[in-house]
Amino acid sequence: MNKKPRYLQIVHWMREKIEQGEWVIGSKIPTQREIAEKFGVNRSTVITAIEIVKSEGLLEGKTGSGIYVIHNQWSLNSEMSPPDWNDLTKWSLQPSSVHTVQLINELETRKDLIQLSKGELGPDLFPHSEIAKAMGAVSTQIQDFGYGDGLGDLELRKEISRHLQKSGIKIKPECILIVSGALQALKLITVGILKRGSTVFLENPSYLHSVNVFPAEMTIKRIPVDGNGLRIEELFQQTFTRNASALFINPTFHNPTTTSMSLEQRKILLEKCQHYKLPIIEDDIFRDLWMDARPPAPIKVLDKNGQVLYIGSFSKTIAPGLRIGWLAGPEAVIKRLRDVRMQTDYGSSYLSQLLVKELLASGMYENHLKNVRTILKERRDYLLQLLTLHLSDVASWSKPSGGLFIWVLFKKKINMQKLFKQCINENVLINPGYIYHDHQSSIRLSYSYASFEEMEMGILTLKKSLLDVV
Amino acid sequence: MNKKPRYLQIVHWMREKIEQGEWVIGSKIPTQREIAEKFGVNRSTVITAIEIVKSEGLLEGKTGSGIYVIHNQWSLNSEMSPPDWNDLTKWSLQPSSVHTVQLINELETRKDLIQLSKGELGPDLFPHSEIAKAMGAVSTQIQDFGYGDGLGDLELRKEISRHLQKSGIKIKPECILIVSGALQALKLITVGILKRGSTVFLENPSYLHSVNVFPAEMTIKRIPVDGNGLRIEELFQQTFTRNASALFINPTFHNPTTTSMSLEQRKILLEKCQHYKLPIIEDDIFRDLWMDARPPAPIKVLDKNGQVLYIGSFSKTIAPGLRIGWLAGPEAVIKRLRDVRMQTDYGSSYLSQLLVKELLASGMYENHLKNVRTILKERRDYLLQLLTLHLSDVASWSKPSGGLFIWVLFKKKINMQKLFKQCINENVLINPGYIYHDHQSSIRLSYSYASFEEMEMGILTLKKSLLDVV
Repeated sequence: MNKKPRYLQIVHWMREKIEQGEWVIGSKIPTQREIAEKFGVNRSTVITAIEIVKSEGLLEGKTGSGIYVIHNQWSLNSEMSPPDWNDLTKWSLQPSSVHTVQLINELETRKDLIQLSKGELGPDLFPHSEIAKAMGAVSTQIQDFGYGDGLGDLELRKEISRHLQKSGIKIKPECILIVSGALQALKLITVGILKRGSTVFLENPSYLHSVNVFPAEMTIKRIPVDGNGLRIEELFQQTFTRNASALFINPTFHNPTTTSMSLEQRKILLEKCQHYKLPIIEDDIFRDLWMDARPPAPIKVLDKNGQVLYIGSFSKTIAPGLRIGWLAGPEAVIKRLRDVRMQTDYGSSYLSQLLVKELLASGMYENHLKNVRTILKERRDYLLQLLTLHLSDVASWSKPSGGLFIWVLFKKKINMQKLFKQCINENVLINPGYIYHDHQSSIRLSYSYASFEEMEMGILTLKKSLLDVV
Repeated sequence: MNKKPRYLQIVHWMREKIEQGEWVIGSKIPTQREIAEKFGVNRSTVITAIEIVKSEGLLEGKTGSGIYVIHNQWSLNSEMSPPDWNDLTKWSLQPSSVHTVQLINELETRKDLIQLSKGELGPDLFPHSEIAKAMGAVSTQIQDFGYGDGLGDLELRKEISRHLQKSGIKIKPECILIVSGALQALKLITVGILKRGSTVFLENPSYLHSVNVFPAEMTIKRIPVDGNGLRIEELFQQTFTRNASALFINPTFHNPTTTSMSLEQRKILLEKCQHYKLPIIEDDIFRDLWMDARPPAPIKVLDKNGQVLYIGSFSKTIAPGLRIGWLAGPEAVIKRLRDVRMQTDYGSSYLSQLLVKELLASGMYENHLKNVRTILKERRDYLLQLLTLHLSDVASWSKPSGGLFIWVLFKKKINMQKLFKQCINENVLINPGYIYHDHQSSIRLSYSYASFEEMEMGILTLKKSLLDVV
């Protein structure tokens, strides 16, 4: 098809990238290995191509760092050079994710890796037929869909209200805000409810440490989680500034440690928080994924005071790609966040909202959950079995009674960065505990996504990698 | 059905609202009129009910301000009281929308008002059959959908890349980020690309003044727009801090003034911005809605340097409820914002993305646009005719050649707050120019949503209201 020699194809590709402004001045080009893979050539061919473009004055190598764009075809011929986008990003409000998290986000889309990382249901748990059926129903219900009022579709809010009643939570539809996932709910609370100088109390470890939810203006205090959940006594050794503190907690099938607080502990926590007027943001996204027995009631059920903002999601139970979750709380909070939402992105996809509404209203969601619980249990038990078989000498874990993960602690100190990378080299992706601010030698393993065969291969690879890094 | 006397029904309803924590302590309850409407009773019945709940110690009236919750059933019996959510919201990072904008957002969902406000296509322009057809196609294509990588569906990005080629823009799919509407793109740029202390240059008037996109850390400078678009000479009388300034511009069918910059002006602007290294954020969401002739090429087409970030959306051309738009720019910017997106809401609804992809790939989008252009033109001409007939003595306007609005300037100074409210009293919703920071007596009228009959009724009502407020 293409008669140009390979090295010239690469030269033209690079020139075009620079000419079109896709690679701006100051940016690093892909590595020689990446380019070689892209074109299916040897590295020497890539090096030849790079030398040509260098000789044109467009590229420059920096020792030990890589090849950078230093000019484009326009800047070579004029005094003009574009804004330095790389510099602009350096001092922005939103920090970058830590390198490991960026890498995980990228690698989680790779089909050739065994995904022991993904916090989502695998292809065999995706409700294909239910979704196709619901899509059919939705396509007959569609009316014109405009900008909403920020609260979300009323019928969906009614269905969520009904669904929450099964967990004992009485929330009116007008006290529910539809969000594009739990993370967005947390963001909205952070920018819309909390004061600039607030102190936020987070569990440690917590998946919240792997995303930058809280702006630099806020102080983060970490309260340890143990086998019984948040250490309440350590929380209340802290000082609280009235109306400028909040507790974020994930008390049911906690991510990543999988522990759940007992009902007794929940009661004590709520009572103390009421005493100190410390608002609770309860993240309860794993509740519907219990396997052995229903978990203790949400803290929100015990709350008669409007003390608790309650967050849920369909990302873990149906599919993340829906981008549908909810936030429930006092009307004053919901009204305020509705306005913030209208300044953020004008609400969630109406299509996704309708689909979820249909899944709830038809009972398909409940049926799907029953199926998910059965299969998740098999998957969990299989992964537990694999761990017992292969890693019981070197690690410990407890049996999760819900959620998607097993939290594994190594008995000896291990270089976790090295282990993480070694596993990737062997095509297995794991989540090292340090991204959740855990200082032990720990990993979070998912049993929800990989196939049974992949789980076995993954654990064997992990075992081998452990030997390689010790 | 319900045998309780009406006033007792209201008492129980209020008690429950307070008991469940939906009305938190410190919050204002709905007005007597609102409650009376809700229950279909006289105000005297509401007053009786309120007096009872007051006597229980739960409510208190504040002179001239309304009735407030001062206790709940728990706080009456204990020392505990909930966090003051109303106070918390007062010092948050995200300011509230101005009152008029909040009111418009709320009133735009009311079916009983004539909507001369809405910036979206009306029910007769909603592509029902195309969307139903595309839904059918999508339901057969659905695979499991997980957390993406933040960029959005590759097939959709390819389709957008092809679509942009028709406007002369050459952008690779890897330089496109899918967003949940243009507003989100602006937010992502603001928190992810701009420096904390940046100065942002905005058109004045601009719809951007009606949403709080920019954090308090940034300085906003307003550059006037006239019949030829942004006054370039006034922009370049400013001083620019290298790598800490950016220009946000909506050069095609500008919202709200509807003007478009000429190609010549675009060239001058880009050249000068290159000279000063001032990045351009080009908001081009109305481009596909031209009526008389294609508008001048996007500034992005002239950009060979990676100077311009380019924003588009399907909210104005298909439906806002999809929540699908895009951002195109240099790879470094797109990569950075992908990471910010993964810390914000993990991407846009996969369903919405698939649906838009299908509409684009099937050619249904192009066909739909042809239809939209024809009908919009009729609607625009009709509204122009109504204005000429009824308001030519008191106001002036120019004929828009694209977009959804006519920008009307009154010849005499008018109390715009009063006019806005008077129109609402008469069931007509208009957007007063002051929400866009216009200091003239101006309104933005939409011809895209209301029916022909409603437009006539709306203009007659506007005329009458003008007499009432003079």
